[in-house]
Amino acid sequence: MNAPEGRRPTTASIQPERLWQSLMSLAAIGATDKGGVRRLALTELDRQGRDLVGGWLKAAGCQLRVDALGNLFAIRPGQRDSDPVGIGSHIDTQPSGGKFDGNYGVLAGLEVIRALNDAAVVTERPVAVAIWTNEEGSRFTPVMMGSGAYAGAFALEHCLGQRDLAGISVAEALASIGYAGTDAAPRFAAYFEPHIEQGPILEAESITIGAVEGALGQRWFDLELIGQDAHAGPTPLAMRRDALLGAARIVQEVRRIAMQYPNNARGTVGQLIVSPNSRNVIPGQVKLTIDLRNAQDATLLAMTDDLRRTVQAIAEEERLAATLTEVVYFAPCHFDAHWVGRIESIARALGHPVRRLASGAGHDAVYVARTCPSAMIFVPCEGGISHNEIENARPEHLAAGAQVLLEAVLEAAGGAAA
Amino acid sequence: MNAPEGRRPTTASIQPERLWQSLMSLAAIGATDKGGVRRLALTELDRQGRDLVGGWLKAAGCQLRVDALGNLFAIRPGQRDSDPVGIGSHIDTQPSGGKFDGNYGVLAGLEVIRALNDAAVVTERPVAVAIWTNEEGSRFTPVMMGSGAYAGAFALEHCLGQRDLAGISVAEALASIGYAGTDAAPRFAAYFEPHIEQGPILEAESITIGAVEGALGQRWFDLELIGQDAHAGPTPLAMRRDALLGAARIVQEVRRIAMQYPNNARGTVGQLIVSPNSRNVIPGQVKLTIDLRNAQDATLLAMTDDLRRTVQAIAEEERLAATLTEVVYFAPCHFDAHWVGRIESIARALGHPVRRLASGAGHDAVYVARTCPSAMIFVPCEGGISHNEIENARPEHLAAGAQVLLEAVLEAAGGAAA
Repeated sequence: MNAPEGRRPTTASIQPERLWQSLMSLAAIGATDKGGVRRLALTELDRQGRDLVGGWLKAAGCQLRVDALGNLFAIRPGQRDSDPVGIGSHIDTQPSGGKFDGNYGVLAGLEVIRALNDAAVVTERPVAVAIWTNEEGSRFTPVMMGSGAYAGAFALEHCLGQRDLAGISVAEALASIGYAGTDAAPRFAAYFEPHIEQGPILEAESITIGAVEGALGQRWFDLELIGQDAHAGPTPLAMRRDALLGAARIVQEVRRIAMQYPNNARGTVGQLIVSPNSRNVIPGQVKLTIDLRNAQDATLLAMTDDLRRTVQAIAEEERLAATLTEVVYFAPCHFDAHWVGRIESIARALGHPVRRLASGAGHDAVYVARTCPSAMIFVPCEGGISHNEIENARPEHLAAGAQVLLEAVLEAAGGAAA
Repeated sequence: MNAPEGRRPTTASIQPERLWQSLMSLAAIGATDKGGVRRLALTELDRQGRDLVGGWLKAAGCQLRVDALGNLFAIRPGQRDSDPVGIGSHIDTQPSGGKFDGNYGVLAGLEVIRALNDAAVVTERPVAVAIWTNEEGSRFTPVMMGSGAYAGAFALEHCLGQRDLAGISVAEALASIGYAGTDAAPRFAAYFEPHIEQGPILEAESITIGAVEGALGQRWFDLELIGQDAHAGPTPLAMRRDALLGAARIVQEVRRIAMQYPNNARGTVGQLIVSPNSRNVIPGQVKLTIDLRNAQDATLLAMTDDLRRTVQAIAEEERLAATLTEVVYFAPCHFDAHWVGRIESIARALGHPVRRLASGAGHDAVYVARTCPSAMIFVPCEGGISHNEIENARPEHLAAGAQVLLEAVLEAAGGAAA
């Protein structure tokens, strides 16, 4: 029995307190003194987290599958043995991470399963919760490894061979925690990923639900500027080749580029290393990184061209040698227009302030979107802060996002009262 | 018998080859693979250097004295037992130092003594060569410790208690190399310090002798800028508090200040440290140093006021907390007008291209100038490069500086053929 599109099932409700408790229980595994979580991918703590959440999902009637990269799929059967509707995210954290990044998406999925059980709903399609391996990339590169391999962006063997700083491979780490699986990964009929925004927009605008239209494309660069070390005292201004002066101009030009272009342009210099970095020596070398982002590929390319011209002009004026190297390219991702619209409508129907926005960061959904219609649901986080032990989110916002998720899943899976 | 001012004695000449050989012999102690020297203050290598040069000076008929801070004075007797005319510099080096910085001044002094001996000149006043302890400050702070204590800028006990990174005190280091002396330091009737320029001006203008009018005053600052760490992707430009953007503007304003003010203004940001310094995180903190210099104290103060206003304005515009702390102040030094003029005249009379200039860096002579009429003689160094293993100078320039020194010393000491 298909739920007609636009009908909002009222038979199932998530329980805010239960969702909050599951978040806090998982956050106890790898908890830090400052209230955050340190639970790196494929560590013993990650195993404990997987066992805990997998156990909850199994207890909620799901069948567990683990694929060769440790991606865990918990499948709640539907009336038909068809491709499930997926919900997912990750439970690995940054070294100084928070309680909500990733964990919220997985545990909102668990809460949806529990709410369906509470209401004795049997959906037409199965509903699955996915825990993707190594999203953060803090221990192993590439980031978003599990979902990327799932979507065919990375070869399985390449991922299994990647090693952490201690020389341990992904394959060895998977085996050591018992998550080197052999199951086939399911294809999804649709995929939803709830997540804290990790940015300040929703909070600043007092909006509860973000309907995420897509993720910004990213081009990352390394820039090296070479001038000439010299004494700060004896060297007149006109005779200097100061790499830091060139770098300082480029830092400001990166902001100018980000402000000048449309489509959610971003530009950031996050890392800058001065050499010799001595108080009374004119810096002869600066290495810095540049991160450009835009929702449209053509605009991102125009920003890149602008950057190249700007770097060359400044290097000439400052008499520096400049080497600009592109090191990463992520294409912009456009989520499924139908489901972006439905999330917006569902949130509005539930009475939540809602807006469309772009994800500035990458998420597992960006890769999964290559395989099926996908969308994300953002909720505010305090101060826009994430990847930090003080990361925080309000229970009512987390609950609102989970209810929107539940209704979208019901719609995609064909909800029906038992 | 006083030599009438302006008379150029012709009885003594330095030997360029002998000067060069003594420089190369001393440079072998602590020689590095790249052609430089690493001979930190009060190390075993410093002892070897002191023993070598002290031995040469003793063999040249000098009486050696060592004071409580290890300053070594080699005194060639004159006709009268009066205050000697001093020549000096240092033989400690930077960790990656060169063959000429400091060493040239001391060995030019040795060459003057030898040239006086060759010509059997007995001056009226004694002539002394000083080796000042720990000029570089690379192992122990403060820099220019020996000459500073000699001039009363630092208390002896304070200097003796200073410790290196390994916890060894100056007193312990002096004792361990046998240079904890008990002799009184001589007062000088006049003091001359030859030195490589450590800057690019003389070479660029094809000038052999710099008559140093003084040393720039210096004000050093630490600046901390605090904004807010945030994700480079999700955070719109308008909501950022990017400490590196504020720092980049200040780096450029330091140049603007240095270009705007007269009297040999300099401005340098040599050290800049970004936190968390991660590619895709907006920097929440930047620490940087600012070094302002000027030949006139009033102008240096005006530059400082400008810096304070500029930092405050940028911090407000960028919504950053700024803490600007002054950490070092050296007053401008003005060398003795008579001797600056004489050095210029002697050099011109010898046929050397000469110009007046300011020393951008500090030197032992800056402290000694507080005790007696003092002046410095600069010679070019290759590319203006110093504090570097590739530091280089041309033998004919070094010889020219030593001959100018010899004639200035003869004039000050009262030269007479025996």
